[in-house]
Amino acid sequence: METFATVEAMRAWRRSQGSRSVGLVPTMGYLHEGHLSLVRAAKADNERIVVSIYVNPTQFGPKEDFAAYPRDLARDSAHLEREGTDVLFAPTDAEMYPPGAATFVTVEGTLTEGLCGASRPGHFRGVATVVSKLFHIIEPTRAYFGEKDAQQLAVLRRMTLDQRMDIEIVGCPIVREPDGLAMSSRNVYLSADERRSALSLSQALAHAEGRIRSGERDAAAIRAELLDRFAETSHARVDYVEFVDAENLAPVTRLRGRVLLALAVFIGRTRLIDNRTFEVGE
Amino acid sequence: METFATVEAMRAWRRSQGSRSVGLVPTMGYLHEGHLSLVRAAKADNERIVVSIYVNPTQFGPKEDFAAYPRDLARDSAHLEREGTDVLFAPTDAEMYPPGAATFVTVEGTLTEGLCGASRPGHFRGVATVVSKLFHIIEPTRAYFGEKDAQQLAVLRRMTLDQRMDIEIVGCPIVREPDGLAMSSRNVYLSADERRSALSLSQALAHAEGRIRSGERDAAAIRAELLDRFAETSHARVDYVEFVDAENLAPVTRLRGRVLLALAVFIGRTRLIDNRTFEVGE
Repeated sequence: METFATVEAMRAWRRSQGSRSVGLVPTMGYLHEGHLSLVRAAKADNERIVVSIYVNPTQFGPKEDFAAYPRDLARDSAHLEREGTDVLFAPTDAEMYPPGAATFVTVEGTLTEGLCGASRPGHFRGVATVVSKLFHIIEPTRAYFGEKDAQQLAVLRRMTLDQRMDIEIVGCPIVREPDGLAMSSRNVYLSADERRSALSLSQALAHAEGRIRSGERDAAAIRAELLDRFAETSHARVDYVEFVDAENLAPVTRLRGRVLLALAVFIGRTRLIDNRTFEVGE
Repeated sequence: METFATVEAMRAWRRSQGSRSVGLVPTMGYLHEGHLSLVRAAKADNERIVVSIYVNPTQFGPKEDFAAYPRDLARDSAHLEREGTDVLFAPTDAEMYPPGAATFVTVEGTLTEGLCGASRPGHFRGVATVVSKLFHIIEPTRAYFGEKDAQQLAVLRRMTLDQRMDIEIVGCPIVREPDGLAMSSRNVYLSADERRSALSLSQALAHAEGRIRSGERDAAAIRAELLDRFAETSHARVDYVEFVDAENLAPVTRLRGRVLLALAVFIGRTRLIDNRTFEVGE
C-alpha cells in the first residue's frame, strides 16, 4: 500500500493508472467494520482502490467534536493494508483548503433542510465541498458510502448527478455490532452504561418495523411511541425522529412506498444516528 | 467539427481522446473576435479544442436579459468551423440542469462581494456552478476566459484552485473595436447614438492611465473625475467605477502595486463592462 499526503502525489499515481477502474472510499478514519465493508465492496468492483482519511473541519459545527474526533492513523493503516488497499490518501488541511480557500459546494432544498441538515447547519455544505475535492483529486470510477449516513448518501448522489460528475455513487448496508448497535467511530465515546442505552436506537427501528407490519400507517402515531421509548431511556435525548420520503427526504405523514425512518439521539454527550428504509404497501 | 448536444455524447468523445491535451473555451455564443481570440489561444496550446455555447439561466438575474440575449448558432458554428474547432458542445438546459437540480458552487468573500457581485446577486454562483459542470463533462487540460470579465476570471481561478481541479485557467487580453470599444455580444443592443456614448468606457480607462502616469495615487480623486465624465456622457448611467486589488478584488484607496480599474456603465438599457490593470510604482 502506498500512502500519499499531497494532492500532487495522489494525482501522479492516478495518472499512472490510466483508464483502470478506481474505487474510492472516503472516510474520516478511526476505521471500523462498517468502513472495511466499504473497502471490500470497492475491491470487488474495481481494479484499484483508494481510501482517503481526512477529518474535514468544515463539516463540524463550532460546538461539535472536531478536536476530539478519534484518530489513529497507524491502526487504520494496518487495517487497510490487510484489506489489500492500493493507496491511502491522508492529506493535511493545507492540501485540502489552500490559503484563502473560499469555494463551497451546496445542495439546497428538502435534501439538506431537515434531519441532520436542520440540527447541524453547514454540515452538508462541508461534506459536499470536501467530497467534490476528493473526486477532483482522485477521479474515481466509483465511490462508496455507508447507508448509516442516509442523508449524506442522498446529498452526494444529488451533487454527483447535478454536477455532471462521471462517478458512480454506491451505497452499502449499515454494519452492526452483534447486539444491533450501528457501528460508528463515535461509539468509542460511550461509557459502559451509555453503551447499553445506545441500543435504544436499533430497538426503536425494530419497534417501528413491527408496528408497520401490523398495519400502522400513521407516521405521527409511531413517532409518538418512539419518543416515549426514548423518554424512558436513561442518558437519551432525542435530536430527531422522522419519517421521510426515501428519495427526496421530505417529511411524510402517511406511510406508503419507500419511506426512511431516521433517528438522531444524544446518548450522554455522544450524538448517534441510525435509520432504516421500509417498503410500505397499502 | 463535431457538434454534441448531450453530456453522454460529449463524454464519449472525451474518452476517445485519452491523454491528448484538450483546450476548452466556454461561451454563451453570439461569438465575436474576443471569443475567437480565445479559440486561437486554445488551438496554439492544445492538441484538441472544444468550444461550448450555452446561455446559462442561473447567471442571469430575474430582471436581466436572459430571454433577449442574442443567439445565432448557425453563424457561431460557421465561425468555429473556420477556426479549426474540433468539437462544439451546445447542450440543452435539461442536460446541464437535470430535473430537481439543487447543487450550486459558490466562491465567498471579497472576490464576489464587490463589483458585478454587488450589482448582480447570484451571478457568480451561476457562473461557478455552470463552469464546474462543463469542467466535469469535458475534463479539459486548459480553459480560456477573456480578461474583459476580470472578476469572473478571478472567481474561476479561485474555484479551480480551491476545488483542486487539475485544469489550467488561461486569461486572454481584451479585444477591442478599432475605436477602443471592448467587444461584447451585448454591443448589438446599442443604437448608433449609444454606440458613440459607449466609447466613454475605454476613454475613461485611458484618462485614468494618464492621471496615474502623471503621478496621481489617490483612487478617490481619479474616480471622481471618471464619474464626472460619465455624468456628462449622454445615455450613460454608472453602475460602478472601482479601483481594487488585482488579486483579491478588495477596494483600494491608495494606488500601488497591481491595481484593477473596473467599470460597469449602463449605456441606455445596455450594461457594459470594461477594465484595465495598472502596475503602479511608488
